[in-house]
Amino acid sequence: MNVTVRGRTRHYRTVAFDAGANTVLLIEQRLLPHEFKIVAMPDYRATARAIKDMVVRGAGAIGATAAYGLAQGARAFRGGDLKKFLRHIGVVHRTLKSARPTAVDPVNALNQVLAAMAGGKTVEEQQAMALAAAEEFAEHDVRDCDAIGRHGAKLIRAGMNVLTHCNAGWLAFVDIGSATAPMYAAQARGRKFHVYCDETRPRSQGATLTAWELAQQKISHQIIADNAAGHLMQRGKIDLVIVGSDRTLGRTGEVANKIGTYTKAVLARRHGVPFYVAIPLSTIDWKLKSGLDIPIEERNESEVLGAWGVTAKGRREYVRVANPGSGAFNAGFDVTPAELITGIITPAGIFKPEELWNRRRELGLATTG
Amino acid sequence: MNVTVRGRTRHYRTVAFDAGANTVLLIEQRLLPHEFKIVAMPDYRATARAIKDMVVRGAGAIGATAAYGLAQGARAFRGGDLKKFLRHIGVVHRTLKSARPTAVDPVNALNQVLAAMAGGKTVEEQQAMALAAAEEFAEHDVRDCDAIGRHGAKLIRAGMNVLTHCNAGWLAFVDIGSATAPMYAAQARGRKFHVYCDETRPRSQGATLTAWELAQQKISHQIIADNAAGHLMQRGKIDLVIVGSDRTLGRTGEVANKIGTYTKAVLARRHGVPFYVAIPLSTIDWKLKSGLDIPIEERNESEVLGAWGVTAKGRREYVRVANPGSGAFNAGFDVTPAELITGIITPAGIFKPEELWNRRRELGLATTG
Repeated sequence: MNVTVRGRTRHYRTVAFDAGANTVLLIEQRLLPHEFKIVAMPDYRATARAIKDMVVRGAGAIGATAAYGLAQGARAFRGGDLKKFLRHIGVVHRTLKSARPTAVDPVNALNQVLAAMAGGKTVEEQQAMALAAAEEFAEHDVRDCDAIGRHGAKLIRAGMNVLTHCNAGWLAFVDIGSATAPMYAAQARGRKFHVYCDETRPRSQGATLTAWELAQQKISHQIIADNAAGHLMQRGKIDLVIVGSDRTLGRTGEVANKIGTYTKAVLARRHGVPFYVAIPLSTIDWKLKSGLDIPIEERNESEVLGAWGVTAKGRREYVRVANPGSGAFNAGFDVTPAELITGIITPAGIFKPEELWNRRRELGLATTG
Repeated sequence: MNVTVRGRTRHYRTVAFDAGANTVLLIEQRLLPHEFKIVAMPDYRATARAIKDMVVRGAGAIGATAAYGLAQGARAFRGGDLKKFLRHIGVVHRTLKSARPTAVDPVNALNQVLAAMAGGKTVEEQQAMALAAAEEFAEHDVRDCDAIGRHGAKLIRAGMNVLTHCNAGWLAFVDIGSATAPMYAAQARGRKFHVYCDETRPRSQGATLTAWELAQQKISHQIIADNAAGHLMQRGKIDLVIVGSDRTLGRTGEVANKIGTYTKAVLARRHGVPFYVAIPLSTIDWKLKSGLDIPIEERNESEVLGAWGVTAKGRREYVRVANPGSGAFNAGFDVTPAELITGIITPAGIFKPEELWNRRRELGLATTG
């Protein structure tokens, strides 16, 4: 998507590859929204560290970063000894895979690149195939998000107020995003609308990342406290909710997403506001039988007890907000049941959550499950 | 309630009066939860300023502060000239009344003290009556909160998890509080339970004031992001919700309270969790016919865009969290309809919200409406 730096607007992807320099180019997301910077990872170890240290985050984005990292590692190999090359690839693979051990996207991305490389008979062929496969992984991510936008755009009519939670934007993918894709597509079709971004405590991804994206894309928006959506719905000020998902159960249509998503779904139901979840097909889990089986990560309480921001003097600081003697409970995700979800926006179209299982063949169970 | 400073536990009121020194003693609430300090207001002008600058906040607490301020001003008058004295009282009254122009409690408190003084025939008599009336106002506030606790305590059984939102604690009153009163009373009866404090963005009164109170009173508690209560209710981890109210409509049972209260009521209804509102009778508005007529204050967007806290070096700072190019919508309150409220805990007992109007005589309409 577009970013304006010092008055100059350019198109950037969250993750890109410079084949000449053999570097992975990333938006340094830890500096956002206060600073925009592209960082070049000089080798696969640095790329793995960038995943680990959250320079890059979001399912699609870390998948593509791992894929590019594998190609980068492969292309850094000198000589034509295939056996040595494959040993080297084994090290590169393990390094990238262990960067974010609980995430499934890097694993899938690495497997795809490895599978493509297997067809190459020489080191050189395998190196070329690795790059081609990584590029294809990234392009596939972009095409998926583009298709989500195409299907979802019809939900956003001119003059609407749209609510979103957390960041399922282009910063979480290679480009375009999932929950934001329908917004960007509707904007491209000339429609004017307004977006309310839930702040999304405790990590404030709505106030920082989503608001930054929408500002760059010049979409009218306001940040609200997570407490405010109920009041806005009561007064008829929200027409549509679109969120992303970390994991959607193909069998039940349940959706795991950032803590607070469930609350918005409950409010939306009460007020008859349509509630949509936008996802690439790779986030569908075809195995789990119940949302109760989804592990809910409990994160460090310091996230709830304070906030990161920038002081009046421009220093980035963590401030402790809460009573020093008190602790916190910090669940990272919650699960929204299918009955509260109006539709799931996928690259293959919009489906009712309970339809997913019956359409599992066309939605990719054959290849991923 | 009790506060422990450097290992020494003592009982404090939020607002008290030192008759010997003719000073109003206040907890400096702007320093909480990071520092506990009692400040003595040397004259009525300082007392008015303390109300204006939010050294003291909360309906009951600012009412009592205004009442004491009027007594303080009266007692500072030297001489026996009744005409001069009454002119002086007029100035004191106007100064205190204008300190927080939209609040109704100081107005009521000042009227009560003025009415009591009217019976005095000399300056000295009126001075004594002013002090007695201010003390009576404060005692009445304490008795009311105590009665709320007595009635509400039966709702809290051993082992329960109780959710509260914002701060309707003793810091908002002279002592004990409204939403917290049943907790303190249940604790006094030997019951052990756990309290989840909603952080309560954007001003974080739950994470700061309520958590501080509960820690001082040694009640088991954890702070949660405002996003987390839905998840906890889904997992059966919340048994009871108790909140306060800034204004309760006697005709409809609707409750205006801190933004986010409505959301918790909607979640509680979905999960069959009892939802109670604890109020002193003075906060019942017998006139308004609809919650839509309650003016909803829109506050400065900086509250949503950042947070106040303490840095690692102990400096109190505001940090900007949100994207610098983005604005916010910041409604201070929302309105919860009667149908979502299990009961209203008052000093006169617990009532269904729709019962208030039929019981308006016993609940004080005759005297306040």
